[in-house]
Amino acid sequence: MLAEIKGINEECGVFGIWGHEKAAELTYYGLHALQHRGQEGAGVVVSDGEVLKAHKGLGLVNEVFKDANFAELSGRVAVGHVRYTTQGGSSLENVQPLLFRSQAASLALAHNGNIMNAHQLRGELENMGSILQTTSDTEVLAHLIKRDGQDTTTETIARALNKIVGAYAFLILKEDKMFAALDPSGIRPLSIGRLGDAYVVASETCAFDQIGATFVREVLPGELVTISDAGIESERFAIREQRKMCAMEYVYLSRPDSDVNRVNVHASRKRMGMELAKEAPANADIVVGVPDSSISAAIGYAEESGLPYEMGIIKNRYVGRTFIQPSQELREQGVKMKLAPVRGIVEGKRIVMIDDSIVRGTTSRRIVQMLKSAGAKEVHVRIASPSIQHPCYYGIDMSTRNELIAANYTVNEICDIIGADSVAYLSEKGLEKAIVKDKSLNQGICTACMTGNYPVKEQGQTPVMVTH
Amino acid sequence: MLAEIKGINEECGVFGIWGHEKAAELTYYGLHALQHRGQEGAGVVVSDGEVLKAHKGLGLVNEVFKDANFAELSGRVAVGHVRYTTQGGSSLENVQPLLFRSQAASLALAHNGNIMNAHQLRGELENMGSILQTTSDTEVLAHLIKRDGQDTTTETIARALNKIVGAYAFLILKEDKMFAALDPSGIRPLSIGRLGDAYVVASETCAFDQIGATFVREVLPGELVTISDAGIESERFAIREQRKMCAMEYVYLSRPDSDVNRVNVHASRKRMGMELAKEAPANADIVVGVPDSSISAAIGYAEESGLPYEMGIIKNRYVGRTFIQPSQELREQGVKMKLAPVRGIVEGKRIVMIDDSIVRGTTSRRIVQMLKSAGAKEVHVRIASPSIQHPCYYGIDMSTRNELIAANYTVNEICDIIGADSVAYLSEKGLEKAIVKDKSLNQGICTACMTGNYPVKEQGQTPVMVTH
Amino acid sequence: MLAEIKGINEECGVFGIWGHEKAAELTYYGLHALQHRGQEGAGVVVSDGEVLKAHKGLGLVNEVFKDANFAELSGRVAVGHVRYTTQGGSSLENVQPLLFRSQAASLALAHNGNIMNAHQLRGELENMGSILQTTSDTEVLAHLIKRDGQDTTTETIARALNKIVGAYAFLILKEDKMFAALDPSGIRPLSIGRLGDAYVVASETCAFDQIGATFVREVLPGELVTISDAGIESERFAIREQRKMCAMEYVYLSRPDSDVNRVNVHASRKRMGMELAKEAPANADIVVGVPDSSISAAIGYAEESGLPYEMGIIKNRYVGRTFIQPSQELREQGVKMKLAPVRGIVEGKRIVMIDDSIVRGTTSRRIVQMLKSAGAKEVHVRIASPSIQHPCYYGIDMSTRNELIAANYTVNEICDIIGADSVAYLSEKGLEKAIVKDKSLNQGICTACMTGNYPVKEQGQTPVMVTH
Amino acid sequence: MLAEIKGINEECGVFGIWGHEKAAELTYYGLHALQHRGQEGAGVVVSDGEVLKAHKGLGLVNEVFKDANFAELSGRVAVGHVRYTTQGGSSLENVQPLLFRSQAASLALAHNGNIMNAHQLRGELENMGSILQTTSDTEVLAHLIKRDGQDTTTETIARALNKIVGAYAFLILKEDKMFAALDPSGIRPLSIGRLGDAYVVASETCAFDQIGATFVREVLPGELVTISDAGIESERFAIREQRKMCAMEYVYLSRPDSDVNRVNVHASRKRMGMELAKEAPANADIVVGVPDSSISAAIGYAEESGLPYEMGIIKNRYVGRTFIQPSQELREQGVKMKLAPVRGIVEGKRIVMIDDSIVRGTTSRRIVQMLKSAGAKEVHVRIASPSIQHPCYYGIDMSTRNELIAANYTVNEICDIIGADSVAYLSEKGLEKAIVKDKSLNQGICTACMTGNYPVKEQGQTPVMVTH
Repeated sequence: MLAEIKGINEECGVFGIWGHEKAAELTYYGLHALQHRGQEGAGVVVSDGEVLKAHKGLGLVNEVFKDANFAELSGRVAVGHVRYTTQGGSSLENVQPLLFRSQAASLALAHNGNIMNAHQLRGELENMGSILQTTSDTEVLAHLIKRDGQDTTTETIARALNKIVGAYAFLILKEDKMFAALDPSGIRPLSIGRLGDAYVVASETCAFDQIGATFVREVLPGELVTISDAGIESERFAIREQRKMCAMEYVYLSRPDSDVNRVNVHASRKRMGMELAKEAPANADIVVGVPDSSISAAIGYAEESGLPYEMGIIKNRYVGRTFIQPSQELREQGVKMKLAPVRGIVEGKRIVMIDDSIVRGTTSRRIVQMLKSAGAKEVHVRIASPSIQHPCYYGIDMSTRNELIAANYTVNEICDIIGADSVAYLSEKGLEKAIVKDKSLNQGICTACMTGNYPVKEQGQTPVMVTH
Repeated sequence: MLAEIKGINEECGVFGIWGHEKAAELTYYGLHALQHRGQEGAGVVVSDGEVLKAHKGLGLVNEVFKDANFAELSGRVAVGHVRYTTQGGSSLENVQPLLFRSQAASLALAHNGNIMNAHQLRGELENMGSILQTTSDTEVLAHLIKRDGQDTTTETIARALNKIVGAYAFLILKEDKMFAALDPSGIRPLSIGRLGDAYVVASETCAFDQIGATFVREVLPGELVTISDAGIESERFAIREQRKMCAMEYVYLSRPDSDVNRVNVHASRKRMGMELAKEAPANADIVVGVPDSSISAAIGYAEESGLPYEMGIIKNRYVGRTFIQPSQELREQGVKMKLAPVRGIVEGKRIVMIDDSIVRGTTSRRIVQMLKSAGAKEVHVRIASPSIQHPCYYGIDMSTRNELIAANYTVNEICDIIGADSVAYLSEKGLEKAIVKDKSLNQGICTACMTGNYPVKEQGQTPVMVTH
Repeated sequence: MLAEIKGINEECGVFGIWGHEKAAELTYYGLHALQHRGQEGAGVVVSDGEVLKAHKGLGLVNEVFKDANFAELSGRVAVGHVRYTTQGGSSLENVQPLLFRSQAASLALAHNGNIMNAHQLRGELENMGSILQTTSDTEVLAHLIKRDGQDTTTETIARALNKIVGAYAFLILKEDKMFAALDPSGIRPLSIGRLGDAYVVASETCAFDQIGATFVREVLPGELVTISDAGIESERFAIREQRKMCAMEYVYLSRPDSDVNRVNVHASRKRMGMELAKEAPANADIVVGVPDSSISAAIGYAEESGLPYEMGIIKNRYVGRTFIQPSQELREQGVKMKLAPVRGIVEGKRIVMIDDSIVRGTTSRRIVQMLKSAGAKEVHVRIASPSIQHPCYYGIDMSTRNELIAANYTVNEICDIIGADSVAYLSEKGLEKAIVKDKSLNQGICTACMTGNYPVKEQGQTPVMVTH
Repeated sequence: MLAEIKGINEECGVFGIWGHEKAAELTYYGLHALQHRGQEGAGVVVSDGEVLKAHKGLGLVNEVFKDANFAELSGRVAVGHVRYTTQGGSSLENVQPLLFRSQAASLALAHNGNIMNAHQLRGELENMGSILQTTSDTEVLAHLIKRDGQDTTTETIARALNKIVGAYAFLILKEDKMFAALDPSGIRPLSIGRLGDAYVVASETCAFDQIGATFVREVLPGELVTISDAGIESERFAIREQRKMCAMEYVYLSRPDSDVNRVNVHASRKRMGMELAKEAPANADIVVGVPDSSISAAIGYAEESGLPYEMGIIKNRYVGRTFIQPSQELREQGVKMKLAPVRGIVEGKRIVMIDDSIVRGTTSRRIVQMLKSAGAKEVHVRIASPSIQHPCYYGIDMSTRNELIAANYTVNEICDIIGADSVAYLSEKGLEKAIVKDKSLNQGICTACMTGNYPVKEQGQTPVMVTH
């Protein structure tokens, strides 16, 4: 929800399970844990070994599944997906997993990420007479596989993956096999777990905790995992590169209880707050975090700085889709929306306000104003990540470059714009220190949106490098 | 939501506004801030000086109002209500404000509390030939007023209030006047604020903050306030008694950003945690609060004890009404519902787990187990309020006595039952110290559910006093 | 539906059953057969001998009952109601049967008709301190009964009925008795039937056929029938007068398969057509009826005149509530709504167009134009009832007097206005001949809307007699 | 609706319009007139010359379009479709018009009929690597066209049509052209009309009357019509054969006000009744038709025989999708469903009961029983078409052969089974006489389901010829 305010949006979350009587039901719970990664649509495709059946819909997981008949979704194998989309409206056809039926063998795909050369591949396929049904990049992979022969095998998938450029985590299901694939730089997260004898694959480990499964290992960059009744097998479809896990997964996107590439997110955020306290201390009375995603960092800042942590901002839990936005007139009269200040806490205080990031700056300005009109004497904004100055091509729907406040203004100007008494960002070094604990575990991160260093480039359409 | 798990439920929240062009819309926002006090139904009655119009429905405020046409709800005066009810089903007729039309003068009522002698009064009214339409206690007051003459005046209301026994905060609206009344012991909260020239009355001050209004004063115990275009007037319909504000408003029910009887709720909870740390220290590594209501107390405990506060339990924000409860079988296999442990935090730790209260004990047991199976070495449960051993007759739908774990077991037995390593409650003295800051402000509290000392008794049906 | 076009609307239909295990379900089917008498709301109240339970809603019977749980509506006794209303919107509170609960004995009422002195009685009740919840006339009767003592008996009902003036058929239910009452002139229909050992009461006999019950007898004017496990008893609460059954029940309102006061409606309509053919022959090629209500009369006209009956106008069965009305522009371009001409039939023909009545004349004009633009050479309009010139005070929501075309124009003027080649109405004598077959059966009719002879008048508020 | 009882179901209706500002709205009204041809889904695709936009949904036309925003469906060209389907459930993907987008040129298809070699063509396409998204035969045509080159032209369509075998009426839309095609035997109906300067194409002429358009001509067997801003052009993609219009269109499927292949349906049905009266007279008192589809034939029978036509069976207009079917127990007690006898008419009478066809015989038996238990002395069943003994391969979802009563029993046996006093069918000669008025107009009919003479056969899968 804050996502909408901020303008940072994850595209998707994927979940798969192999070998459990209640595969569809467990997928429901798994997707539930991944709900924060996409609220526009959800779905499951289940296989009983012979037929693939789908249940999909627009809306939250609960809405989509409230009328689901799990008895009809029988089968020991399932893949699921939650989707964020900006294309709005009647995009039911784009809700994943995409299911492609044929007389020979059916195929379902669930995808988190972004295929950079999708437009070009789509044109090539259409020129050969293929008809694509969705506007989703994901469908391109299905056609690449099918054009390579009727059967879907490790080989046809690997060849198809080698034609696409981008950041991706794929789950692919046919009647008797499930495949999991990660892009060569490992930009998107994908983990493997076990629940009794069953295998589980998910975008975040919080989905394992949700269903009582335990973490086994990460899917590796450039790895294609095949799961069947014969067990689990691994192929490498690309040279293993240095992992470049998206730093925003730690900063904002993932759930605090997940371990992303074996680093706990809450703990990494708390360390970001601690690093920030070291780098940018403030002469203040209390530390206040912007709920929900900045609470961990705020606690870290408080602990390191010795200042008391206080609940100076409260979030209304009942603001939902159907909330009637106050008119401009009422907003000016003081009607609040999602966040409200706790006057009894902030009145007369010098506040360190911790937020995880600033995108356009509008939300930050509103929160600073809100604190000040509730009586805060000073508001020192501390951002627990480096400033975002570059667009993301790897699956995060971020604002365009001319909307990014840090791409257009200096820190001092931003301080003026948002009306704070001081502003400071965590350094890139500080961020890395907070996240990467064990280099031997290949815990590198992608900071392209902060630094402009893009680890993956589409041929001929190289992302523009911006120098400051 | 946690309410459902715990079995503590507030009956209602009321909101009124006099003298603003956007009365109905502001009531919508005000009710939104009070949503936590009742999720089963909501409504507004607006007066344009001549006609009372109602918009009511079952469900959350957002659901009820999503189809509302505010243009049709024109008028400068409105009262609103959010309702919690256990009577379920087709209880639309019981959704408040109740609106009674007549050829002479109409009447609307919004009520938070409980009328203890409602059953007896209802029988008397029916014997005289009156027909009551709802099963709501609130309707009784309307009939008492109407039986006293067609017009609704300060006098007829005062006479009617003197016939009822209980804890209540009433808002009463006729075409050209609004009345606010509080029971003689002031058990339920009710505050007066201003928004420009308009008057606002609400169960909690967070509703003032939501719409940009400012707090003026409390409605006093036994006071009947009359608001009209002539301004605000005060009558006393009962002798002023020592205020006995419901302690559970601080412990659990009210929003942390509200000031209840001029005491900030978050701050009082933090002090409960601090007192608890003094009274019942624990040999542990980290402090963890059960979200959401126990976070403030946990931070207080951490600050006082010097132990780090950690986010060891996470709450899934997307569990809603339509969440499909996992079957017993899946729950046993480890499928989680609303709360999940953060394994990366709790593993190998000795934990102080702070909760605000224990009602039946089932939830506490589940959370302790959850922490232990996520690897917690020890779990020391600390409850930031005294144990609940007695039923509430004043408007909180608590479990019956034989369900109250503390009414049937000693602290040691409870510790065994919930599987904790130690259990301790805050003392009554500690609770009072945390809440009551200024005796001169008449800040007494009702602790009947903890102590059995009932400040208000129905004649002949005195609440049973239980001695241990 | 045609009702909306015409402006003649029945207020309601009632159904009751005593002594069948499936009382609520059979009421559903009975109401289904009465659906044409009211499409705005429906409901049932069922008694299991101890408690009255209601299921009510806005919309068609199917819509209201699609989520009904008949298992919860257990009981061997039920009354039901379908409602037509012009008050629109959120009138759920007015949907009948009205159910009044009390600690002593509950009471449910279902009503078809109109209480002429309701406003005055309501004022008197309110002055005595009663609160009325609905804007429905029916509630007045409940208060009159309850004011007379807590228990509802034959005597209290009879006394209450004697206070009201109007045309009515009432079904009254308490836990252990059902009452059926008809106004002293018997203006509205109400029949008694049997289904095995069970008693059934309904506005029309088609409800008996629907459930397989058989007709026993009419409820008599001024009769109060009491049904209980002791059997059926009859009281007379008013002097028996000459029956004055509403003639419009035969002309338009009732279903053709019903027997109204022992006269089959289809057969009476066919005789109206035959009488019309004798009184007003036409030089024409074919006879065409306006569907659905005029088909019987058209067949009668054809049979008597020897002209062939043809399906020259067709009615679209799928035009429903959600049909999007064509804009004025599209209508002018020829887009049709509910009725369409059959060009292959009417082209080049001289047509006798049979309709049952003309209210405002707008529909007749539209149909004549439609036939002519489909190629009809001549259109001779023949109306199978006398012209409507006076308002109805007995429960039919007809247009007001200044909207009634026949109250303001001569037959020749009407002919010009609707663009017909000739117009003729059935005479009052012809109507009576077609309906009344057996004077010994007390088969008199009320023709007040045609003649201005009102059989029932409210004291001091006598309906205005109009002389032409 | 009777369709469901009978087991005869038309697959679809199509509608197209070229050159009108309100193309989408007029399509809504046109589809409305075709609603009887399919109630499971409906849709429109509109072109503004550059982009194709779709609005589709499950349910009746009214339901699908009630939330349509016609302002967003702007464009001067549209094709629409109503669909009947037995595949039930979540078949939204199969709702037509199917829309295939591509970077080069999009394509929409609406289809009425059946492609007999669809399964084989689908297999061939999949083997070449195409992915088909629906289970609809219609999609096959799109792939055949697209495989032939990116652009859709008269040539690519003609080549594709020559690969398919079956009965079909197609509307094909691309950004700047609309195509209409009919199978070489002209088994399915398709007519061209004009509305001002606009061209209209529809399955039935009642859609022209609905919007005020006038009939121009039939699309001819084996003709491919191209409509664009340059006007209308005609190509022949197959040798013109003797037209074999589906006889069931006259007997049962089409609306009585439509002209099918220039023969009015109501008039043809009346003539069927007249022929039947000549071929199979009955010693009876009255003629009764089974509503709605047999009324015309009954009037014809009455006129020819001189017996009076009476409304002896009535159809409840309010039985819809949400009607709760009575349990077996209640049905046995006499609870009726859709049809009810008019006791006042049928009691003591010898009845000629006219029906249009018998499929499984269950409905006929039920109606005969119903009439007899309402007191009919004799029931002589006369069927206004020859007996159905063979399955249909041309788009009508009829029962399979072992369900067809006439394929398994003699007329005398059928008479016994349905409990009639006599049964007679119209002869094939009589049917042809009633339908074919002008041989020069190529008015031949397909009577395959009655005679087993299949005009179109799939190679290698020739429909089995059954000889009796």
